[in-house]
Amino acid sequence: MNNRKHNFSAGPCTLPLETLQQAQEEFIDYHGAGMSLIEMSHRGGHFEEIAKQTRELALEIFQAPKEFSALFLQGGATLQFAMVPMNLLHGGARGAYVNSGAWAKGALADAGMHGEVYAAWDGADEKYMRMPADDEIQLRDNTRYLHITSNETIGGIRFPEWPNAPVPLVGDMSSDYMSREVDWKKFDLIYGGAQKNLGPAGMTVVFVRKSILENCSQNIGRYLRYDIHEANGSMFNTPPVFAIYMFHLVLRWMKSQGGLAAMQRNAAEKSETLYSAIDQSDGYYNCPVARECRSQMNVVFRLPSEALEKKFLAESEAAGLMHLKGHRSVGGCRASIYNAMPLAGVSALTGFMAEFQHNNPA
Amino acid sequence: MNNRKHNFSAGPCTLPLETLQQAQEEFIDYHGAGMSLIEMSHRGGHFEEIAKQTRELALEIFQAPKEFSALFLQGGATLQFAMVPMNLLHGGARGAYVNSGAWAKGALADAGMHGEVYAAWDGADEKYMRMPADDEIQLRDNTRYLHITSNETIGGIRFPEWPNAPVPLVGDMSSDYMSREVDWKKFDLIYGGAQKNLGPAGMTVVFVRKSILENCSQNIGRYLRYDIHEANGSMFNTPPVFAIYMFHLVLRWMKSQGGLAAMQRNAAEKSETLYSAIDQSDGYYNCPVARECRSQMNVVFRLPSEALEKKFLAESEAAGLMHLKGHRSVGGCRASIYNAMPLAGVSALTGFMAEFQHNNPA
Repeated sequence: MNNRKHNFSAGPCTLPLETLQQAQEEFIDYHGAGMSLIEMSHRGGHFEEIAKQTRELALEIFQAPKEFSALFLQGGATLQFAMVPMNLLHGGARGAYVNSGAWAKGALADAGMHGEVYAAWDGADEKYMRMPADDEIQLRDNTRYLHITSNETIGGIRFPEWPNAPVPLVGDMSSDYMSREVDWKKFDLIYGGAQKNLGPAGMTVVFVRKSILENCSQNIGRYLRYDIHEANGSMFNTPPVFAIYMFHLVLRWMKSQGGLAAMQRNAAEKSETLYSAIDQSDGYYNCPVARECRSQMNVVFRLPSEALEKKFLAESEAAGLMHLKGHRSVGGCRASIYNAMPLAGVSALTGFMAEFQHNNPA
Repeated sequence: MNNRKHNFSAGPCTLPLETLQQAQEEFIDYHGAGMSLIEMSHRGGHFEEIAKQTRELALEIFQAPKEFSALFLQGGATLQFAMVPMNLLHGGARGAYVNSGAWAKGALADAGMHGEVYAAWDGADEKYMRMPADDEIQLRDNTRYLHITSNETIGGIRFPEWPNAPVPLVGDMSSDYMSREVDWKKFDLIYGGAQKNLGPAGMTVVFVRKSILENCSQNIGRYLRYDIHEANGSMFNTPPVFAIYMFHLVLRWMKSQGGLAAMQRNAAEKSETLYSAIDQSDGYYNCPVARECRSQMNVVFRLPSEALEKKFLAESEAAGLMHLKGHRSVGGCRASIYNAMPLAGVSALTGFMAEFQHNNPA
């Protein structure tokens, strides 16, 4: 496709071109079945095979130990903000939250509607420019889990290392899902929206430690129960067929690229390329977040003035570098460089940045 | 597409071929944007326009008055089983449920986890073979709503007329959504999964009377709140982009066919064709449900023996008539003839039925 643009959208976002090509090719008549995959019963052989392979491949690629199951739910990370406390907090147990930015704040607020929760660390005073060190996280008695947001999509920060805590971790990994290795023994549950690294919007992937399921709440509606979804292979009710199918294609693409190790290596290389360009611009471009917590997925940066930012955004778009605008709540620029963004896209961006700086001195 | 089969699946199910063709054609490069629609930010111009048009067209096609909004959620009807009582039942209000079969039963059970609910009528003793008359529905004091399942997908029954009740109705219309006119003044809320008449799996469409939103609960997680979704045009969090897009194409197809009136007329004609074939088979084919409550979407029928049913299912499939097996919980046969099933598909089925009967006397 000659017209294809470099898409730096924060999500939904760029996907591997070969997955789109395959989906297009088999869209109307899936493998000679005489119908589209999206027209088939989810209880039929074709889709059950896809769902099974996707569950297995998700665990394999993410290097999850056999103690975990992969669930394919709906409602985004936002529904998980409620489901986590609904399932895990009962009998007086409390949920601790690292308030690291916009998403963590939302997780904490929603959880408060469904259980007793508290901020174990709060980055608000420092404008969410970094993640906490282990010894800054203050846990109270009877804490069931410590909730972290591995990467803040809007703030552009991430946990460089998984925190050490005396309680299990629950991780919202929406925006750096399957881009880095996980220290699985620390986690009871990991969740995230698919629409960054995993596929199109419309699915939430949850990795849950199976041993915790019997202690999950059972006095909530069945869609809200992890144990029900796990026992039914995420087919308790009609699953998001197309999103699971696309995730399957993306997982196979990840595998063909070298799996999680390759995703991690590429993320490091791409983000380093971009941060270097920022750091070597004599302050023309400026990344406000703490260096050691810089996101490898969402690179936020400012220009010398809002007028220059506006011009930068207009000209970058004209040059085929799309969706570089920062989130409406913080302004500035943001380049989201998820797994499917090729290094060539980042190089095109750094090339443009240098040229723009040259043509538009501060 | 020469190979296209007649697909009688109960959902996900057959979709209008022209919607699949259009989706395929513009899948990789949406309207020259240089990326797929599923790669685009949901806050960008392309998708916002689709979402807006889809909201408007859904109301228009369904003939909903301006007092209603259309919401595009996730989690299927099953999540609505919990969301309805979570939002509507507070301050001691109770929810009444018509227990008309498998889906109503699920709605009632889930609702019981989130509010005080009761069965205002129960069809279990009659094996769910009919819907209640108005005077059989027994409401208690302080009832906020009467929940009905307009069409039971598994049992193959429907409400021939919308019930009259002294409280607002809440309707699960998953399996006859937009196939019949609605008496809007009776309803506060209508919901249903998209994966029958509206598009692929992965979206729940909710029509809500706007005036009830300020009395919906606000002490629940934000994804669970109707008021939040309504205030944000279903874009509070990332919506199911692809499902909304496909719904948009299906709505345009409905409009091109003559809108809701045409869907209703076609449903009557197709179901009459099929029930006539059953009724005129001298008892070879037998529909167990009460005549006046026969579904126009899911036609259930039995053959003289389970052995003949097995043969019927094998041979119909070989003849390109797919997914005629009844739900695993009830057995027998079921032909789901949703909006997108052409009359030609039904005629092919009735032709096959006559031939099968001829070749396989009881």
